[in-house]
Amino acid sequence: MPRYRVIFLPPNEEVTVERGTSLLEAASTARISIKNLCGGDGICGRCKMIVKEGDVSGDVSPKLTREEIRKGFVLACMTYVQSDVTVEIPRETLAKEKVKADRDAERFSFFDQEVTLEGADPFPLVKKVYVELSAPTLANNTADHERLFDILCKEIGVCKMQTGLKIIKILPQILRDNNFRITATVGLRREIAEIMNVEGGNTEDANYIIAVDIGTTTIVAHLIDVNTVRTLDAQACFNSQSIYGREVTRRMITAEKKGDNELQKMLIQDINLLIENLANQNSVNLKDINAVVCAGNTAMGHFLLGLPVENIRRFPYVATSVDPPPLRAAEVEIEINPRGLLYSLPGISAWVGSDVTAGILATGLHRREETSLLVDIGTNGETVIGNSEWIVSSSASAGPALEGASLSCGMQAEQGAIEKFYIEDGAIGYKTIGDSPPKGICGSGIIDLVKVLLQTDVINRSGNFVENGVHSFEEIENKRSFILIPSDKTRTGKPIYVTESDIENIITAKAAIYAAMKILVKRLDMSFDDIDRFYIAGAFGNFINIESAIAIGLIPNLRRDKINYAGNTSIKGAKIAALYKDAFLQIDDIRRKTTYYDLMGAPDYVDEFKKAMFIPHTDIDEFISSAH
Amino acid sequence: MPRYRVIFLPPNEEVTVERGTSLLEAASTARISIKNLCGGDGICGRCKMIVKEGDVSGDVSPKLTREEIRKGFVLACMTYVQSDVTVEIPRETLAKEKVKADRDAERFSFFDQEVTLEGADPFPLVKKVYVELSAPTLANNTADHERLFDILCKEIGVCKMQTGLKIIKILPQILRDNNFRITATVGLRREIAEIMNVEGGNTEDANYIIAVDIGTTTIVAHLIDVNTVRTLDAQACFNSQSIYGREVTRRMITAEKKGDNELQKMLIQDINLLIENLANQNSVNLKDINAVVCAGNTAMGHFLLGLPVENIRRFPYVATSVDPPPLRAAEVEIEINPRGLLYSLPGISAWVGSDVTAGILATGLHRREETSLLVDIGTNGETVIGNSEWIVSSSASAGPALEGASLSCGMQAEQGAIEKFYIEDGAIGYKTIGDSPPKGICGSGIIDLVKVLLQTDVINRSGNFVENGVHSFEEIENKRSFILIPSDKTRTGKPIYVTESDIENIITAKAAIYAAMKILVKRLDMSFDDIDRFYIAGAFGNFINIESAIAIGLIPNLRRDKINYAGNTSIKGAKIAALYKDAFLQIDDIRRKTTYYDLMGAPDYVDEFKKAMFIPHTDIDEFISSAH
Repeated sequence: MPRYRVIFLPPNEEVTVERGTSLLEAASTARISIKNLCGGDGICGRCKMIVKEGDVSGDVSPKLTREEIRKGFVLACMTYVQSDVTVEIPRETLAKEKVKADRDAERFSFFDQEVTLEGADPFPLVKKVYVELSAPTLANNTADHERLFDILCKEIGVCKMQTGLKIIKILPQILRDNNFRITATVGLRREIAEIMNVEGGNTEDANYIIAVDIGTTTIVAHLIDVNTVRTLDAQACFNSQSIYGREVTRRMITAEKKGDNELQKMLIQDINLLIENLANQNSVNLKDINAVVCAGNTAMGHFLLGLPVENIRRFPYVATSVDPPPLRAAEVEIEINPRGLLYSLPGISAWVGSDVTAGILATGLHRREETSLLVDIGTNGETVIGNSEWIVSSSASAGPALEGASLSCGMQAEQGAIEKFYIEDGAIGYKTIGDSPPKGICGSGIIDLVKVLLQTDVINRSGNFVENGVHSFEEIENKRSFILIPSDKTRTGKPIYVTESDIENIITAKAAIYAAMKILVKRLDMSFDDIDRFYIAGAFGNFINIESAIAIGLIPNLRRDKINYAGNTSIKGAKIAALYKDAFLQIDDIRRKTTYYDLMGAPDYVDEFKKAMFIPHTDIDEFISSAH
Repeated sequence: MPRYRVIFLPPNEEVTVERGTSLLEAASTARISIKNLCGGDGICGRCKMIVKEGDVSGDVSPKLTREEIRKGFVLACMTYVQSDVTVEIPRETLAKEKVKADRDAERFSFFDQEVTLEGADPFPLVKKVYVELSAPTLANNTADHERLFDILCKEIGVCKMQTGLKIIKILPQILRDNNFRITATVGLRREIAEIMNVEGGNTEDANYIIAVDIGTTTIVAHLIDVNTVRTLDAQACFNSQSIYGREVTRRMITAEKKGDNELQKMLIQDINLLIENLANQNSVNLKDINAVVCAGNTAMGHFLLGLPVENIRRFPYVATSVDPPPLRAAEVEIEINPRGLLYSLPGISAWVGSDVTAGILATGLHRREETSLLVDIGTNGETVIGNSEWIVSSSASAGPALEGASLSCGMQAEQGAIEKFYIEDGAIGYKTIGDSPPKGICGSGIIDLVKVLLQTDVINRSGNFVENGVHSFEEIENKRSFILIPSDKTRTGKPIYVTESDIENIITAKAAIYAAMKILVKRLDMSFDDIDRFYIAGAFGNFINIESAIAIGLIPNLRRDKINYAGNTSIKGAKIAALYKDAFLQIDDIRRKTTYYDLMGAPDYVDEFKKAMFIPHTDIDEFISSAH
């Protein structure tokens, strides 16, 4: 396959790629962050570029105006390199900053909130232990290595220990240079404690762990100070793999074509970027970050480690590993302390990942007699119902719409994102993050939006525009659109609007999630009223309005005191595991008692899904009768 | 430091070395095996070479004749490179073959003898396990990695498992290419089983382990077929480190000057040579050798792993590690299966190594109520006294004389070595290995020799020649010598003889060992008669004559039925550990109950040593009174 040079101006980056590579991929290879919400489907029209020189192929996009086409504009995701090319990236196409503060964490004050694990004592996965060894005498001349083992066994209570040759080699000198007072960094590999490092003197105070939630759409990382058990900072970015598809299945197909390493590399780049930012902005030295603890769906877990994914999506849906061992983080090129460890939380099966076990762990539903339902409103909508006796889980592909991606004016939760819509004096009002001029709509705003559009008769219960002359609609980028905020009131100078297909995306997402919950409840011969506690999980970027969620039929109409918004339980679970070694024992217990219910095998799934494709639902009685 | 080229003719090898390097070291660097028995002290005079061109420095050796000096002969160990030089190595100086069959093993039929561990079931450290996994179904779609864990847990009964990322990555393909029938190679890392490799189909039949006894003077390696639990072959070579000194202390000093890696490299080269020979001569593929299990004194254990040795020889004698973890053999460049493991048997302290724990394990003295004494007649003469309740150990530096090294006509046990001396019709008779013409004297012959020299009044009880005109002595290489076999009857055409200093070396060695045993017995308020079982261990190269050993005062005069020649217990212990995982538990038990008695701290050691410097002993009553 011939390879061509692609020059991007600005920012003046050059890469060499194979013929047929899309300009979007080429930009990603050059590590240029491009606005792209639809996952490279040619739908969002954000990735506009201008081909200045050279040959490209690809159909002309209906997203481009005649004027734009005349000027050489193309959509990068649908334009393929056929020779050396020079490409101009308009300023508006460049994503301004890839990494954002994790607003969800901020809102929930995770920074201050201590994570705890019921029934367990705190014990971080990587511990720094300052020890003062007795100097050897003729009566006590135990070897250095075993002398250190003995005191650590007493200090930490874990006596099965391993050490690498490198550490044993440097130990005698470090002991004697420091009067036998050293700090050992001890990392747990399940029941074994590994002495990862030894340093002279007391360096206990510098010990950090990064917890990561690897979402299909969004990656969130928290920086934890192990000594104070506090979260210092939290940041998020969109998953760069999205250029290969919004859904994990599309990415797995890409991985089979390109090799698993390609998608691994993108993920690791994103994670390294988050870690680097967290470290820089909090004056933490990378070498003092001793572990990374990850949770995510099974496909993401595989991409993280570069494991083969091909059997995940094929009948009978077999993962390569759902409980991979702790690794040296450097083995997958995660940039922390070179001897630091990478922990993947154990998941359950090909379609129930460690984000689910983390969620169960975080809510503690596996330890209570009452029956809880936990729904994770992410790209893969996982539902779990269970108690201390049994747990049933399922997953449904919902797409990224509810995370603020894939919509015409969707965005991540950052300054200027509309986080709330409401009706005031019959008109649609809104509130942005930071009360800045609006730039787009983030997750929580999207759920409100559907509700207010229905209430103001902009849409009907099927999600179609009500073209009865009351509201005016217009064509924007060839799509029938309703303008929410005119261009003169936005930050960008462009209108914020919603299209019928945006509404359809949202309804599809909520219907997939609702149908999954419904089927699971039915299979258990229960009704939603039998649920004692209802947890909504998900990194919404902001607080979800539960009334809106019920109004649009995303969640059932339960007694309000049963409903809890649990936030990003995936990262919460990862943080608990980072600070409580017994979390792994509890996850073992969770794994043992969880069974998976495959919705694809449910004869009534399509029926339930179709019924949920209305707002709030075809059987509107379900939502009225059970109102409390 | 300037570097010069040294050309050796024959065998036409060239190396570059620093100025001041001895020709012996240069030859070793060029991997040319040179006859050298004294450890580079200029004593044995074996390493003769002829400097053809270039400048060298160093004193003229009294070992050389005027004629030799005129011809340009030098002793390589005492001659230092000062420019580019060309050196001729006479044929007689070249060691013919470094690696020899391990005669000790042959004699004891270790090849056929099954090693067993009382109170334990066989379980090799590395096991190949053929498994037929059930193909995944929707009802049973456990991930590949965990599916393999589950079946291995059932098959081998060890359920705490680890796997490297590399193995997890290749697993899905290997499973599916082979209809889910694969062979897992499982290596134990104490309580954890590591899946080291997976192969398609049933490859159980090819699984070998190498056991190694790393002696200060001699290295012995046995090739074990794990499936048949049989030793296929055994070979030995002198330890190449000997050019840096006969005693471990001298080598540790060298290691401090040259860095630990230098001595490590030599050891690894020797071990690799033995492994390569064993593999070649038995048509075994290196990739099917999955583990190497080593025993040896603590210094050798440190050299093997490249651990710092400097505190071993300094008060208060602290090892870096006496229980190092199993390693990937490749980590120290031992050439077997790239994922194969290197096990070091745990030792006890800086001066009681794993050769001692291996010896205790092999004799089983730690499991019996009766009290045993185990003496290892090697360069470091270790003595152990103990039973199932307690064990006391000590070590005494004996030197290499009893291993056939460092004597004028000493040699390894190979074809033509005199293994027995006896008196026939008043004259000294002998028997060689293979009944070939004699070339020199090996270990067992040396002990006989002292006895017959005393009986024939060639020497007196102090070891001095009896110059009363009955026997004739002559000067050979400037030393007063007694010719045992005239030149016309030897293989080499040179006489086989013994010097007074040879006798002194032997007496010193036996005195060191005897005194150590004596002190230990005294400290326990016992006498030798309280010993229920007496084990003589050591790789003698051949069967030691117990009557000779008593006659020269190497061992006490005990009831003969108490005395057992146990052979090389170091390698026996290593083999037991290779085939019985529980050996490590028994060694833990041995370590817990063993205390070390430091002879250097014994006020009466020098006194006992001096008393033992006669044949058999100053207190000759000790040897007569206790005769049975």
